[in-house]
Amino acid sequence: MGRAPRRVAALALERLAAALFVRAGMPESDAQLVADVLVWANLRGVDTHGVLRIPGYLNRVATGEFNPRPEMTVATDLPAAAVLDADRAFGPVGMTRAMDLAIEKARGAGVATVFVRRITHMAAIGRYALRAATADMLGVVIGTSRPNMAYHGARRAGVATSPIAIAVPGMDRPPVMLDMATAIAPMGRIMLARDSGRPLEPGWALDREGAPTTDPFDAVLPMPLGGPKGAGLSLLFECLTGLLVANPLIAPAIGPRRETAHSQNGLALAIDIASFIEPARYKTELDALIATLKALPRAADHDEILVPGERGDRVLAERRERGVPLPDGTWRRLAAEADRLGVAMPAPLATPEP
Amino acid sequence: MGRAPRRVAALALERLAAALFVRAGMPESDAQLVADVLVWANLRGVDTHGVLRIPGYLNRVATGEFNPRPEMTVATDLPAAAVLDADRAFGPVGMTRAMDLAIEKARGAGVATVFVRRITHMAAIGRYALRAATADMLGVVIGTSRPNMAYHGARRAGVATSPIAIAVPGMDRPPVMLDMATAIAPMGRIMLARDSGRPLEPGWALDREGAPTTDPFDAVLPMPLGGPKGAGLSLLFECLTGLLVANPLIAPAIGPRRETAHSQNGLALAIDIASFIEPARYKTELDALIATLKALPRAADHDEILVPGERGDRVLAERRERGVPLPDGTWRRLAAEADRLGVAMPAPLATPEP
Repeated sequence: MGRAPRRVAALALERLAAALFVRAGMPESDAQLVADVLVWANLRGVDTHGVLRIPGYLNRVATGEFNPRPEMTVATDLPAAAVLDADRAFGPVGMTRAMDLAIEKARGAGVATVFVRRITHMAAIGRYALRAATADMLGVVIGTSRPNMAYHGARRAGVATSPIAIAVPGMDRPPVMLDMATAIAPMGRIMLARDSGRPLEPGWALDREGAPTTDPFDAVLPMPLGGPKGAGLSLLFECLTGLLVANPLIAPAIGPRRETAHSQNGLALAIDIASFIEPARYKTELDALIATLKALPRAADHDEILVPGERGDRVLAERRERGVPLPDGTWRRLAAEADRLGVAMPAPLATPEP
Repeated sequence: MGRAPRRVAALALERLAAALFVRAGMPESDAQLVADVLVWANLRGVDTHGVLRIPGYLNRVATGEFNPRPEMTVATDLPAAAVLDADRAFGPVGMTRAMDLAIEKARGAGVATVFVRRITHMAAIGRYALRAATADMLGVVIGTSRPNMAYHGARRAGVATSPIAIAVPGMDRPPVMLDMATAIAPMGRIMLARDSGRPLEPGWALDREGAPTTDPFDAVLPMPLGGPKGAGLSLLFECLTGLLVANPLIAPAIGPRRETAHSQNGLALAIDIASFIEPARYKTELDALIATLKALPRAADHDEILVPGERGDRVLAERRERGVPLPDGTWRRLAAEADRLGVAMPAPLATPEP
């Protein structure tokens, strides 16, 4: 039992997270929102974007990089588009506001795009795309940050692992939700390889000198998905967001100025299904499409054909039931913050181990 | 000299293409448009999407799949969005109309999206994204077709190599233009490997039984870029276009109905820079970003760092000067069509060979 991770009920974990953020100065409702987005990632098995981020977030409130009480403003306001200046809001606070604004505008306009500037770490962006899908819309979200990925052909960081998420609703099945980085394997998977003592696959990462490596402890720089494709997509995401909203992130970071302060930009796009087709028909067609794909003859090395989001849906069902497993390191770092801020840690669930 | 490809001046090649399309029943201006898009691809070195397509296009006019005189209609018309029913128009005719409509709507709305249904082969979609960039806008284009790529985990086609293109304008440099398939290597590159007698890289393609192969002659099915990522993007492109405009392409093709008639759908999105930031500032920032990237320290196996579209820009400069090289097979098939339709073939340029 000693090495089995503690399991904590999702609701208790959310309460812990929200309490910590409130102590750090956030309004209750914003704290709840950030807690919900982080625990949602844990529930779906995306632990790299879950509560392990909390100590880092709290630290960045202390340094002034994350603003717990942002005054967000709609800097440009058009019928089907807007720019939201997030005033260094926590990612979930700014992106939820952005997607809600896109959804509201799309109800009238059919399609609406909200560009977000000066936001901070967005956590799992699929969550905001899903927000559109649950409102009978198609949702697209892009997030960009300062360079943390090799540019194709370079030995140094030139672009970011900037993700794109797309979610669309089904009728009798959960939304199909793709949430992918433009890296082959982002830093989270490299850290996982360190923990599990396995080498990386060739082509995943560069070492400190910019040479390819398969040693996860030497790996510092993820490589782009498909070389020029992933690097190009990430570059163009910077052009579609940062440059457009006067908050470029790449050139200031790798040019002579070497800016390193945390900042992100984003884009939330909502397409109102009802403006184009009967939503029930759309959702029925989606179910049929997914059923058809899943019935294809399988590759020799696959037991099952999965569609985007399906694996996470299953982990979520299991973790809602059995709680979120927290590795010892995550538990201890959360406990230290809880102790410092005078918040009680939740009681782990009794975990029946085989 | 015998095996050197004939070189034909771009303008002469355009005239030939346009004349053939006019004989096939197209209005002069549409024929000119299709010719321009095809020869543009040749000029940029994308020969798989150039004039070698002409015999196939003419054949599909004969079968009724391509409509040389479409009556295109705007089926849904909103201030910042529209659905264009292309009535089986040639891709360049329908997509040019779609992007022009998006550009026009974006001038008032800031951002505009045009969905295109029932279009045919789009040729090189970067051309339509570039149309936005030359109008001081950011352009995004997606094209989808019937399944021609393995779905991740399947032995059969389940998605298409559906491409995405993004173009943004610079100040003193050409637009940055990304145009990428969701496959690692689309069929065009596999055919190229056949011609050059080189094996494919592992993971590029499946054979007729759905097993991985590196023999280009056994390869019939391209594999998605990054496994679930490329397959997921392609699937979601179908959800963002086909399902939304009541022209699904995947399920009818792989389900019991097995529909095979040629049909594509598309999306053209235009973002008006001036609605968000001074265009001169945007373009200056883009130039600075590109200059910064190109100055990064290079990887050991790279002589130069390239940005999306740059290689094509160079080929274009060379081919404008020296003409478009046409392999013997392409020349002969074009000559057969020209003969059949009573059009004169252009005189090849005298090619000074070393």
